[in-house]
Amino acid sequence: MEKTYGYAGKILRVNLSNQKIKNESTKEYANFVLGGRGINQWILYKEVKPGVWPFDPANRLIFGTGVLVGTAAPSAGRYTVASKNVFTGGVGSANSGGHFGPELKYAGYDHVIIQGRSRKPCYLWIDDDHVIIRDAEHLWGKTTWETDDLLREELGDDDIQIAGIGPAGENLVRAACIINNGSRAAGRCGLGAVMGSKNLKAVAVRGTSQINVAKPEEFMKIVEELWERILENEALKIYRKWGTPWIAEMGNKISNNPVRNFQDGYWDPKKVENTCAKKLMENYAVRRLSCFACPIPCSQYLKVTSGEFKDIEGEGFECTALKDFGYKLDVDDLPAIIKAHVLCGQYGLDVDNTAGVIAWAMECYEKGILTKGDTDGLELEWGNYDVVLELIRRITFREGFGDLLAEGSKRASGIVGKGSERYSMTIKGQELHETLRPLIGWAFGVVTSPRGGGHLRGAPICESPGISSEEGETFFGVSTAGDRKSYVGKAKLVSYFENFKAVVDCMNICYILTQWVSPYLINTEDLARLYSAATGQAMTAKELTKIGERVHNIEKAFNVREGMMRKDDMPPDRFFTPIKSGPGKGERLDDEKFEKMLSEYYELKGWDAQTGIPKRAKLEELGLTEVALELANLGKLI
Amino acid sequence: MEKTYGYAGKILRVNLSNQKIKNESTKEYANFVLGGRGINQWILYKEVKPGVWPFDPANRLIFGTGVLVGTAAPSAGRYTVASKNVFTGGVGSANSGGHFGPELKYAGYDHVIIQGRSRKPCYLWIDDDHVIIRDAEHLWGKTTWETDDLLREELGDDDIQIAGIGPAGENLVRAACIINNGSRAAGRCGLGAVMGSKNLKAVAVRGTSQINVAKPEEFMKIVEELWERILENEALKIYRKWGTPWIAEMGNKISNNPVRNFQDGYWDPKKVENTCAKKLMENYAVRRLSCFACPIPCSQYLKVTSGEFKDIEGEGFECTALKDFGYKLDVDDLPAIIKAHVLCGQYGLDVDNTAGVIAWAMECYEKGILTKGDTDGLELEWGNYDVVLELIRRITFREGFGDLLAEGSKRASGIVGKGSERYSMTIKGQELHETLRPLIGWAFGVVTSPRGGGHLRGAPICESPGISSEEGETFFGVSTAGDRKSYVGKAKLVSYFENFKAVVDCMNICYILTQWVSPYLINTEDLARLYSAATGQAMTAKELTKIGERVHNIEKAFNVREGMMRKDDMPPDRFFTPIKSGPGKGERLDDEKFEKMLSEYYELKGWDAQTGIPKRAKLEELGLTEVALELANLGKLI
Repeated sequence: MEKTYGYAGKILRVNLSNQKIKNESTKEYANFVLGGRGINQWILYKEVKPGVWPFDPANRLIFGTGVLVGTAAPSAGRYTVASKNVFTGGVGSANSGGHFGPELKYAGYDHVIIQGRSRKPCYLWIDDDHVIIRDAEHLWGKTTWETDDLLREELGDDDIQIAGIGPAGENLVRAACIINNGSRAAGRCGLGAVMGSKNLKAVAVRGTSQINVAKPEEFMKIVEELWERILENEALKIYRKWGTPWIAEMGNKISNNPVRNFQDGYWDPKKVENTCAKKLMENYAVRRLSCFACPIPCSQYLKVTSGEFKDIEGEGFECTALKDFGYKLDVDDLPAIIKAHVLCGQYGLDVDNTAGVIAWAMECYEKGILTKGDTDGLELEWGNYDVVLELIRRITFREGFGDLLAEGSKRASGIVGKGSERYSMTIKGQELHETLRPLIGWAFGVVTSPRGGGHLRGAPICESPGISSEEGETFFGVSTAGDRKSYVGKAKLVSYFENFKAVVDCMNICYILTQWVSPYLINTEDLARLYSAATGQAMTAKELTKIGERVHNIEKAFNVREGMMRKDDMPPDRFFTPIKSGPGKGERLDDEKFEKMLSEYYELKGWDAQTGIPKRAKLEELGLTEVALELANLGKLI
Repeated sequence: MEKTYGYAGKILRVNLSNQKIKNESTKEYANFVLGGRGINQWILYKEVKPGVWPFDPANRLIFGTGVLVGTAAPSAGRYTVASKNVFTGGVGSANSGGHFGPELKYAGYDHVIIQGRSRKPCYLWIDDDHVIIRDAEHLWGKTTWETDDLLREELGDDDIQIAGIGPAGENLVRAACIINNGSRAAGRCGLGAVMGSKNLKAVAVRGTSQINVAKPEEFMKIVEELWERILENEALKIYRKWGTPWIAEMGNKISNNPVRNFQDGYWDPKKVENTCAKKLMENYAVRRLSCFACPIPCSQYLKVTSGEFKDIEGEGFECTALKDFGYKLDVDDLPAIIKAHVLCGQYGLDVDNTAGVIAWAMECYEKGILTKGDTDGLELEWGNYDVVLELIRRITFREGFGDLLAEGSKRASGIVGKGSERYSMTIKGQELHETLRPLIGWAFGVVTSPRGGGHLRGAPICESPGISSEEGETFFGVSTAGDRKSYVGKAKLVSYFENFKAVVDCMNICYILTQWVSPYLINTEDLARLYSAATGQAMTAKELTKIGERVHNIEKAFNVREGMMRKDDMPPDRFFTPIKSGPGKGERLDDEKFEKMLSEYYELKGWDAQTGIPKRAKLEELGLTEVALELANLGKLI
């Protein structure tokens, strides 16, 4: 086989229906959509047509690494998963850190395409280029942690890496995610449920080859320069010290939290104090942990040493878990929140989607729409963590009322009716974890994200006070970039970050150490240099950005093909009403300005300003002529 | 428990996710939607909301019997199954004869609602009121015939009745159906795939109680009168003698057959001769078989006694199988057609949906859109029955090219592209088995059928020469009822039969022995008399018709809620082009007249004449206020 640089060079295709396994080449995709998320989404676009539902065997579950993954580039260790989204019916995508990505690449594969549906529970064992589908009857029903232990024992190798599902995925709970390394999650979009629908319990991988870099000396020089920059960066020092949980208490200073299902943005300062990062670190952090090749690192291993939740322990506790099980459900007991997070890891549940539907149920209970008669006798009162933990279990096993919640708040509210639809805080059908009032650009990035309800696409962190930029600082030609209340320039800023994030995801380094968090950190230029040195192919920042734009347009077109419209790029009505308390009291999204910004954004993107459907000229400019033809055939192209 | 008349009185609800089983009462539904299909579809409408996909655990699979089922009323032995349709995403429904329906009712259940998804292959064992979910690991992968044998042995009772799936359902092949008694099928809409997605292999039932009739003497008097009418009926004598296969050769006299994927309507007379009903009866029919309590009966047990397909045997061979595997694929070898039919029964495949996608592939091959490179080397030539039989196997097991065909022609053509979409002969996404040119009313009834692509809803048989009415005969106030080329009055005729069929399906007697086939046979008045005597509740024909209309509107609203529009009530373009040969040469649907008829039909129905969406006034008149509210909330109600 030809020697490859930067890439492993192979795509593994596994058809679980007929047990066929074959290798394909990465090459045909690399120039067009680079790698990682780019290749994932392009394969998804081409192979999963409209009318295929998420749990159909014809749906694909695609694991991807990235161009830099497995090299010494900072934090180049993520993997990304694509599939039709079980919440939205549109594009689905999520990525995860830990150590699974590099291991897959060392086994010789940039991507793994899973298609079909196994007749019985199975797992995929990738032992370098020896690939086999094995029986997983004995693993079915086990938690992700138990599965890891059993597989390591069965395969006789403690160094294998495993990405798998827990009981939630087996039970097709929509909030189900894919877990690796105990609590690292490809979280959003219900990818764990898709994996469960294919009767695939896990992908275990052991790789012993290496990733070649075309110009090792040049590459290492860049890497060293970036490491230095990262280690000195002031913003990242905060992450190193506190992880991400401190973001929640920062957010409270501008009433930017999802308090009681987003009814307010401001949480009781006593409760904030009870759950602050300092308390977390001092009382529960045992040691620091790191994803592959990470120079920050931001993760801690937590352990509860006394009280009701004594001996609960686990890793990967992010600000999302704190906001989800703390602020959103009004629980100010850290051990209980840690327990909820650990349960999600073991059962294979995404914290945002799980807490989101519980918050919906609690608000319905508060409003009298749901009563004890509906909830199997559970009292769904805010802050009642016993009920929260019990609901996590019932959702996982689809027990009684949990069976309803397993559908997510959008669908559950469609079943319950009675106005409960108003309390479903979802975008495109997926639960939201981000509040959308005090930061206009952030809100806009969350709402336009093609995968629905998440802040990791276009949302610009530079708006957040204390995180990145000073008020009034010009950033990427947008002088209002740091003015969180301004609508001016935000469409441009969000659009910029959408393309940038796509590039980052094609390489699959961690977004936190890029210019997303700190404007002067790793930027597109740096990525182009890394790419060029790694692969030996000259690449400019401009070319990379074009690829990023292409990938984002592919995802948009995927959603358009499924029938999504302008209305799907709008937030829930609640965010047009004022925040009730705290420093941000009275702040709200302005619907007229928001609509105007949306039209402006569509125009900037080269999409139709009314509908948001990509225009033929834009698609052709991006080399997506076949996409244009398809949308035209469907009558979508104006 | 209160004594019930006509009904068993109970609905069994089985949640496979959490293994919960409970009984509910039939009573709350009976007055509103009567029974059988009516209760099925109303439960489906209420419990399966938009956004739930067919293979989601939240989808329901609902088995229903009918008010008269299990009584001595003629042919009152069918059962009906409802679920979201895996082809259309809209309403799904199919019914089947044999002996399963009465057995279920003797066990005490009018309906069985299956929800959730079992963690492992299972079957449901209903032993009177003792209901248990049992492991089906050992049955997974078995054909329906093997499953029946194994279950009868395992349960130690040869008299149990079983409705189950074969490997096709397990593999979520869209064409998968539910089979009972060897080859009786609840065929359309991919219900077998839904059953497979729930990991439910079979429902086995043994019932030893009886169905009480309120006024036994009166009831038996009506039954005797109807038996007499049926036995004397000239049209039914033909069915008794020839079964349904003779319909194909009748159709050829007006070029009304699906020759080579509907490219023509007229088949070579030599080929018709080779596959005619007389040959079938004389050479292969071993003995007559009957569904429960059937006075016709129309079924034969077939056996091939020599040649390549020696010892192939089976029952339930209908004109659909002959048209599908004969005319549609240009195969004029009866043993090969019988073999294809038997394979479908064993694998659990619907003959229409299976032959439809094969016909599409063959036409794509003929046109050069698909080549041997695409088909794993198979030569997809018309009439090549070896290839047909091999494709049936590959579709079932999703092997190679079969994996593509397992998605049905609509979706497969979406993947293949290159104009292959033109050859997908589907309505609302489901394969068609009926040709749509020589019989205008028939075509119209097929096209407007809410479940997509089938003739068993509104299509009026009285148009067919030699089947029911004489040309010019006035029927239900429509003087053009027998004039197959006329557009006049056909909207009214189709609408009439839609409501009538809904009533028949609520009782679940066989449609063949009603006035559908012979205008002077069992009519709504007779059904009202039977109902009144059976249940002791006075019921008029007018009231029954109103219930039928309600049921049909529920199904329509279900489709509207899923986004279906006027365009979904139109036939494939091919039918607007002329038939190429035979007596019907040159005949075609007129698009302008067809569109006009569609608007006229919508208006007659009380639906919006432009969109076909039921109007608020009609829904309220039918007591469907909550449906109107829901459609209004979705912005569908104009």
